[in-house]
Order: sequence, then C-alpha cells, then structure tokens
Amino acid sequence: MARVGILLLNLGGPERIQDVGPFLYNLFADPEIIRLPNPILQKPLAWLISTLRSSKSQEAYRSIGGGSPLRRITEQQARELQSLLRQRGVDATSYVAMRYWHPFTESAVADIKADGIDEVVVLPLYPHFSISTSGSSFRELQRLRQMDERFEALPLRCIRSWYDHPGYVRSMAELIAEQVRASDDVEHAHIFFSAHGVPKSYVEEAGDPYQQEIEACAALIMAELETIVGHSNPHTLAYQSRVGPVEWLKPYTEEALEELGRAKTQDLVVVPISFVSEHIETLEEIDIEYRELATESGVVNFRRVRALDTYPPFISGLADLVVASLEGPEVNLDQAAELPTTVKLYPQEKWEWGWNNSSEVWNGRLAMIGFSAFLLELISGHGPLHAVGLL
Amino acid sequence: MARVGILLLNLGGPERIQDVGPFLYNLFADPEIIRLPNPILQKPLAWLISTLRSSKSQEAYRSIGGGSPLRRITEQQARELQSLLRQRGVDATSYVAMRYWHPFTESAVADIKADGIDEVVVLPLYPHFSISTSGSSFRELQRLRQMDERFEALPLRCIRSWYDHPGYVRSMAELIAEQVRASDDVEHAHIFFSAHGVPKSYVEEAGDPYQQEIEACAALIMAELETIVGHSNPHTLAYQSRVGPVEWLKPYTEEALEELGRAKTQDLVVVPISFVSEHIETLEEIDIEYRELATESGVVNFRRVRALDTYPPFISGLADLVVASLEGPEVNLDQAAELPTTVKLYPQEKWEWGWNNSSEVWNGRLAMIGFSAFLLELISGHGPLHAVGLL
Repeated sequence: MARVGILLLNLGGPERIQDVGPFLYNLFADPEIIRLPNPILQKPLAWLISTLRSSKSQEAYRSIGGGSPLRRITEQQARELQSLLRQRGVDATSYVAMRYWHPFTESAVADIKADGIDEVVVLPLYPHFSISTSGSSFRELQRLRQMDERFEALPLRCIRSWYDHPGYVRSMAELIAEQVRASDDVEHAHIFFSAHGVPKSYVEEAGDPYQQEIEACAALIMAELETIVGHSNPHTLAYQSRVGPVEWLKPYTEEALEELGRAKTQDLVVVPISFVSEHIETLEEIDIEYRELATESGVVNFRRVRALDTYPPFISGLADLVVASLEGPEVNLDQAAELPTTVKLYPQEKWEWGWNNSSEVWNGRLAMIGFSAFLLELISGHGPLHAVGLL
Repeated sequence: MARVGILLLNLGGPERIQDVGPFLYNLFADPEIIRLPNPILQKPLAWLISTLRSSKSQEAYRSIGGGSPLRRITEQQARELQSLLRQRGVDATSYVAMRYWHPFTESAVADIKADGIDEVVVLPLYPHFSISTSGSSFRELQRLRQMDERFEALPLRCIRSWYDHPGYVRSMAELIAEQVRASDDVEHAHIFFSAHGVPKSYVEEAGDPYQQEIEACAALIMAELETIVGHSNPHTLAYQSRVGPVEWLKPYTEEALEELGRAKTQDLVVVPISFVSEHIETLEEIDIEYRELATESGVVNFRRVRALDTYPPFISGLADLVVASLEGPEVNLDQAAELPTTVKLYPQEKWEWGWNNSSEVWNGRLAMIGFSAFLLELISGHGPLHAVGLL
C-alpha cells in the first residue's frame, strides 16, 4: 500500500513573545503579502515594519496568553486527521507546513523524505483560495520542489480550496447553531460572517477568487443552518483587518458592526469564516476589539462561534477531502495555483501566476498602492493593521 | 488513570541554512555554555560570535544536507516512546523541548497545559548529566515554572541521568557489536569512544559529574560488549569539540586518533557516546573531519557506530526509565540539577547551583578563562569550535 503524506498548509504564528518580531519580518518579506515595485526593497521594508511594530503586536499576543496557539491546534488537527485516515485504511502520515513560522515547510518536506512517503496530498487549512494564503504556500512549495530533485520527483496532489465541501459547511452550521440556540431571540439572532479582508484590487484586477468563494460559502452555510435550526436567520458578510486607505473588500467589519449596533441588534452571532483554528484574529481582534466596538455601538449580546479546531465532523470532512483527492485526478501545484483567465477590469493585461511581464506590471501597480498605504499607516500610527495587532 | 506527559529534553538544531545564525546566537547566549564575568556582555557577545561565524557553520550544515536532523529524529523517538508506553498501560503523551531551537521548551509547556496533563516525567535525551546539557535544560524549566503558576503546580518527576541503565548500555553494545563484526580482525578491532568534551574546570572546580559518568558508562558498555562478542576488545575514551587554549577533558579525540594512526590500527570502531541521535557532531565532525584525520594518520578501516535514534531496544529502555520514575520517589528539578557537595580543588568555595555569591565567584573565574579562549579563537580563526562548525 502506498504511504501517503498529508501536507497541511497554514500561516504559523509566534509562540513566544520574543518570536513576534521575526514572525512579522517573515510575513512582510513575502511578496504575496506586500507587493513592492522593486523586490530589492522587500527585506529592508519587512525589517523596518517588523522592528517598528513588534512591541505593539507583542502586546496583542500577551493579551491572549503570550503567543499564538496555531501550531498546537494545527498539530492536533494533523494527529486527528491521521488517525481517522488510518482507520479508513489509508496509510497516512500528517505533516504541518507553516508559511511564516516554525515548523516551516522545509521541515515538513525533510520529514516526508525521511519517512519514505510515496505520494503527497497537499491540503491548505484555508477553506477559500486567496493569492495571499493558499497561493503563497503553493508558491513556496513550487520553490522548494525546484531546489530539490527528490522532492520534485514525489507525486503530489493538491486540494485547491474546499469552501463548498459538505463536511466543512455542515460543521460550520452546527457550531453556529450552538450560538443561535443560546440567543435570547433564536429566530432573529443575526449571523455575522467576518472574513479576513484583502485589497479589492487583488480580486478585481488580479482575479483572486477569494471574494466569490467567501460569498458562496456563506450562502451554503446559511442554507445548512436553516435545515438545522428550522428557520431562516438574518445575516451579514463583512471583511476584517483592512490596511491603510486603499479600498478593500466591503463592507468592513467595523462599519457593519456599528450599523448593527445602531439598529440595536439584540443577538449577534459572529462567525470567523476565513480560518479554521483559533488564532490572534479570533482571540484578540474579534473577542476583544470587535466585541468592545459592537457592544459600545449598541449590540446587546455578542456571541462568537468557536473555530472548528478539532471538531470531529470537521476532521471527518477533511478525511473525505483527502480520500477524494487520492481517488480523483492528480492536481499539481500549477493547476492548484491557477487564477481565472478573465478578470473584470483590465482583461488585456491579465494577471499571470509567476514573475512574468504581465504580472510584473500588476505587482508594480498593486505595490504602489499597498506601499503608500503602509507608509501612511507607519507614519500616522493609525490604521487597521494596528487593530489586528500587526502594526 | 493519570495522564502522563513525557517531556524529552534535547539541544535542538537549525533546520534551514538561514536558521544557523539565530541558533548559534541562542547557544552562545546561554550562561551555561559561556560564562561571562558580567552577564550584560552575554547577548552582545552571542550576537558577535553568531554573526561572525554563521557562514562557516552554514557550510558544515550544508555538507550534511542543509540542516540538522535533530528535531525530526527526536520527534520520531517521542512517537515511538509514546506508543510503547501506551502499550504498557501508561496513558502517556510525549513532548519535545529543545534548548536552543524550535520546538522550544515554551511550546512543549503550552502543549502540556492544553492537553490537561496530570503529571510530567522529565527525561533528558542526554545519558550523562552535565551542567551544560541537562543542567541547562533543567534551569530553563525552573525559570518557566517560576513564571507560570499553572505549570508550577504540575507534579514533575525528573530523571537526572541514565548512563548506567541496562537498556541503554545493552543497546549501545549491540550497535557497537555490529561494527566489530564487520571488522577485518574482529578480536583486535579498537573501540574508540568519542565523548563531547567540557572544560576541565567544569569537572574539577564546579563539580560537574560528567566525566565520571562518561567513564563509568564506557566501562559498562565494554563489559556488555564482551558478553555479546565473546572477547575483550581494546578501547580508548577521548573527548571531542574542544574550544580554545584552556584545558578540556583529556585525551583529545584528535590526538588520540593520530596516535592510533601512528600505531597503524587496522580496525577502528568510533562510538559517539554523548548524544543518542545523529546530528552535526556525528554526521559532520566524526564522519567527515575525524575520518579524514584518522585515515591520513594511518588508521586502515574507520567505522562509525550509528547513533541510537529509534533503535527499538533503546526506546524500550527509555520506556523502562519512565515507568521506574513513575513508580519511584518524586525527584524535583532542584534535586535533579544538584551538584556534588565535595569538589576536588577548592572545597571552601564549593559551586552552588543558581546565582548565589559562591557560584558567582566561579562563574567569574570560569568565564575569564572561557572568554579569553573564545576571543583568541575569534581573532586567530583557529580552534576546535571551527572544527565542529560552530565557529
């Protein structure tokens, strides 16, 4: 029987206060996170931002116990998934590959080679594809494959995104139902999906399918929730963590919360939809900052749906995804990272994956916007990155 | 049944070339590794050494595949030990706590708390106690316990050293026997124990029991080897990785190898005795540098005994140690870290554990010697730290 490696991709997070600065450096040194007109500026800028802002970010991590729980939770998910797959007859071993902190992708690849794995299933722990999350990790894997013949020779099946997978949708709906049932007015509890935002230009100009997948996902979850609770609840989808003056996906979480506050919403059920594990954006941004904003604005009961973590039906859904990937056609990294060929605004200069001419043009344009926004926030000391604790 | 956490302590090692510098920084920032007269100099010196020497050390790591295999092997040991303990009816979960690299002790402690562990067995993966290895990790744990009430409240049983444990001694003898049997002249194959050295002052002035435990260990292994192969082989014990002009434990590995070369030793069987896993000191220092030195000096066949890694009788021995620790009296960190009360040279100023007056005096004295040695090596560019790839 083939020995299957399950490579779980995630962001990573600093586990000790002194790791916050180096973690921020890694994050901002990624061209998928900040696109600069000249790549030579990437590292100095990453150094500058991470140095200037690490004490502020350390404060946020201190407020959630001194570090990110992401590695621990991801490793628990990896163990549970491995056990379940073995019970289902797959000779599976799980590996965790973080993008910006330990254990890095390199470690996972070294382990996979040492364990004599025959085939790898790449499973991003991001349900929705975005250039800046799964896309960045796929590119990292491409880079490592190019540098390593043995890794390059290993058959690899990618799962691009799974926002519409029944196991995931059902699990989300079940956890939301817990909070709906705890509400004072069950039928009118307002379901508030808060997705991590991206600049609008990523979606409209670069063709990032993220927004479309988030919207479809929220609709699927709402339909599933209705079958569970037996009635249709009102809902809102908003985007958190915006950076600088450039337009990001709308509505913004802050504004949407204020509006629901003004409407004296009795029961708000906040759903972190982009990530599947507790981390700084749920434990600090939503639980502390948005809770304060919402209740000050007039929301009476602010409830947050827990992240999926190792919720058994969720892990079971991940196992289904892996089995389907093994039985289906092989999807390689290029296919998994592909962007749609038609984009809304400038079809004549479509975004292409990689460092070709056309993407360079867009890298440059996006970079000028993003870079200005960053500088403005750095100088002014105000902006959404401060809110997330990243700046 | 009590949930038992097995906390495995080890050194850690850089897994990617870009991690070599930060790893060296952590190593040299540890006062158990370099003792300075003034602690305020510790971090600048660590920064200086790690910056100056990281490219040389990177070269050594490149020669063994681009990084240390220590995390991977230690995690494999942890998994095997956990499985075996569960088979024996102990509800055990293993955790890896590295001293100088990821996964750090903090991560292991966070995992232990999250998993609701009732009791912890601390098992250093160093068979012999030394101030600079197990001692440093015990102190790190003491520091973390003082900072964390929940961790401090957790019952903790320490295993101080286990160089004389039958499972370990037997495993070592079996792996040595493999190489003896592969020798041309089985009865005269020369067993060469190469232990990691420490400054002589650590042993003679500070009372580090390391040398005594190494010597007793080598004797036990030789006796066991005789029962396996049926004859008594000649053997030598030497110490590798010396730093600077100050005297370390003798004989030095380099000199002992040259002497055996001059004696035209036909079959040399080199035994790395201090560590239980493959790492830079076995894969690079012994396999590349000492092999070259020995064969150039006249040794005909140079064979190196593989590290124990996940050798099943070794893992079984570790499981015995854990079970005995759970059944025996509780040994706390202070007891595990204790040094003998009588020391050879200056009994009136005996070394005491911690930062009390008497140890300060010794810290200062040792530091002046160690620091001068370092500076000399830094300036001259020659010395044993270069040989190990650390400088």
